[in-house]
Amino acid sequence: MSLTLAHPKLISLAAGFTDNASLPLDEARLLLDEILSIPRTGQPALQYGSTAGDLLLRKLTAKRLAALDARALSPDQLLITHGSQQLRYLLTEALCDPGDIVLVEDPTYFVYLGIAQSHGLRCRGVRLLPDGIDLAHLEQVLEGLRHAGELPRVKFLYLVSYYQNPTGYTTTFARKAAALKLLRRYERFAGHPLYLLEDAAYRELRFAGDDVPSALAAPGGAERVLYAGTFSKPFATGVRVGFGVLPEPVLTTATRIKGNHDFGTANLLQQLLARALATGAYERHLAELRRRYATKARVMTGAIRAHFPAAVEWREPDGGLYVWARAPKRIRTGGKSAFFQAALKRGVLFVPGALGYADDPARRKPDHELRLSFGGADEKQLEEGIARLGRALGAGS
Amino acid sequence: MSLTLAHPKLISLAAGFTDNASLPLDEARLLLDEILSIPRTGQPALQYGSTAGDLLLRKLTAKRLAALDARALSPDQLLITHGSQQLRYLLTEALCDPGDIVLVEDPTYFVYLGIAQSHGLRCRGVRLLPDGIDLAHLEQVLEGLRHAGELPRVKFLYLVSYYQNPTGYTTTFARKAAALKLLRRYERFAGHPLYLLEDAAYRELRFAGDDVPSALAAPGGAERVLYAGTFSKPFATGVRVGFGVLPEPVLTTATRIKGNHDFGTANLLQQLLARALATGAYERHLAELRRRYATKARVMTGAIRAHFPAAVEWREPDGGLYVWARAPKRIRTGGKSAFFQAALKRGVLFVPGALGYADDPARRKPDHELRLSFGGADEKQLEEGIARLGRALGAGS
Repeated sequence: MSLTLAHPKLISLAAGFTDNASLPLDEARLLLDEILSIPRTGQPALQYGSTAGDLLLRKLTAKRLAALDARALSPDQLLITHGSQQLRYLLTEALCDPGDIVLVEDPTYFVYLGIAQSHGLRCRGVRLLPDGIDLAHLEQVLEGLRHAGELPRVKFLYLVSYYQNPTGYTTTFARKAAALKLLRRYERFAGHPLYLLEDAAYRELRFAGDDVPSALAAPGGAERVLYAGTFSKPFATGVRVGFGVLPEPVLTTATRIKGNHDFGTANLLQQLLARALATGAYERHLAELRRRYATKARVMTGAIRAHFPAAVEWREPDGGLYVWARAPKRIRTGGKSAFFQAALKRGVLFVPGALGYADDPARRKPDHELRLSFGGADEKQLEEGIARLGRALGAGS
Repeated sequence: MSLTLAHPKLISLAAGFTDNASLPLDEARLLLDEILSIPRTGQPALQYGSTAGDLLLRKLTAKRLAALDARALSPDQLLITHGSQQLRYLLTEALCDPGDIVLVEDPTYFVYLGIAQSHGLRCRGVRLLPDGIDLAHLEQVLEGLRHAGELPRVKFLYLVSYYQNPTGYTTTFARKAAALKLLRRYERFAGHPLYLLEDAAYRELRFAGDDVPSALAAPGGAERVLYAGTFSKPFATGVRVGFGVLPEPVLTTATRIKGNHDFGTANLLQQLLARALATGAYERHLAELRRRYATKARVMTGAIRAHFPAAVEWREPDGGLYVWARAPKRIRTGGKSAFFQAALKRGVLFVPGALGYADDPARRKPDHELRLSFGGADEKQLEEGIARLGRALGAGS
């Protein structure tokens, strides 16, 4: 991110920025104007609220999620956070001690690895397939940890289940349900709950196919799933509002820690989101955003088809912000690699795939992959950026 | 806070809410309308920013603080946070390990004790006088810790230096400078820097007397003072934006942890504050707020004079939101005391003084004091609330 901000002429296919032109300026302006024009709504927006979050926002969020998952959900199960990153941090703080183990996808959202590292955690990678977490490998990892007597140190499986960052892959409902069941089976060796932290950050950014129910809807989901959602990416990343759906006692603990972090998320942001949901402005914006990302994804994949060597593997995404590309193994993609430097010299930036792999002694980190984001760049930049990358790949292959 | 939200008819002299009627609805509406009406300013407001915070906001904040303290300050020394509570949390996380010791005022801001407890810290109380921290006692505490071989566990002195929460007392510049010098003297026994965490949350809410320079302006201040400021209380508590002025390596560490917490404070809030500062709206609002709190403080102290028994000790505040009252020792004020319950029955709530005292084996916690806030209640409620408390005090004395 800081590289991008420092070199405005660089085409960044790296940053997880959302599309600038699609930001809801008019909608936000109108909604804020309405909120602040009368004291009944304006005063609460500019005043402290509760740590758990605005009740109306929790109600509307619960209703929305209940409809998606076709199951009841109470606003009392929700905690509003300053973006979903804060929720991941709170949950890690609530559940983990230094030396504990978190299971992650291989690859996973690299920013989460930073949280894990800051807490002194060990991460173990579970293979990821295009339709989600590899159940056989999950069982193998759990079994290995059982044999090593390490299961009591395992706290949860972190799963970015929709249009995953970095791969764009979605885990099917059947796989989520099976993963939950597997975790449940190993709890007697752990001596405590083994949670599934389902990070649904990109769930709403779907532009092809149907929505997949969350793991909350699977058997045992209500007791073992920690669901992390966000309004930042679907609405505006400058309006940092995320939420968690959490079982007890995790909810109470996370809320207490949130109180220590900041008392509660800024009320102005929460009221803005609540009104966006209540008035339908959120839905309208989301529909527009989906169309826009569908187009941008097509532009990127079209350019990839035209400019990348055939030896590079990739898939059409159905949502989210990313295309994951696998170069031939001889092309290293790390920040210090000749290829990365060649791409930078041609003025294009991507996220090296190795960043998404945890430090796991059980395997070497693959270092020939690229995360390409179509979120921030405009269509012309996408075309040009991919063409430049293609030339760098061609030169390197 | 939750008691107040649950019983709207209760007069709360407890919550640290700011005055509802004085919230800057019109100003915020106008500023947000301006920001969001053109893409050049609207897009950054709705987009991700950097973890350190918006550069313009850091520049304006540095300029403002530099003028107050009559010394140069670079925006690069600043970190913008989601309220100043987040900064206190980040600094505690950055500097302290479980079992470490933090020196606090006796009494101190009770919410900080929650942060300290959550990190497994021990707090040691340093006596507080009406003109600030008791230097002789600070030396005595440091000397005692040196004798006990505990100085290596001490990380900083937490000082709420302006119109302190809960006492309303302000620490003079001379005392801050002397405290810094004392801490410096003991560093060779600690083996590391002993910082002064200066919490200036109420600095701007001055309505009598002159501003006191911060500890940053004292000799050695640039290297050893961690300055915590906020725009939440002077502008709007629903717009949670605080900031820190930090020396290296604390700045880098705190910024990295902030990245793990939330990537950065919501840009919309930062842009709102930056524009409020740039246009003068902030200054105008602050001037109005000071007049308002001056009036409310007068209403409260007038009512105290009229209704409290003469045996209750208290002082006129020069700023902030609080009056600290000391009842005769036989009147216990804790949440389970007969007096607290009698007050609650009469429909008035205050913060029991004992909450502000750390668990310090060196002394018993005084439990006959009250923190009375004139922030949230309106003038009629202040009159009536104090009258009710006076009757409860009269009945109990």
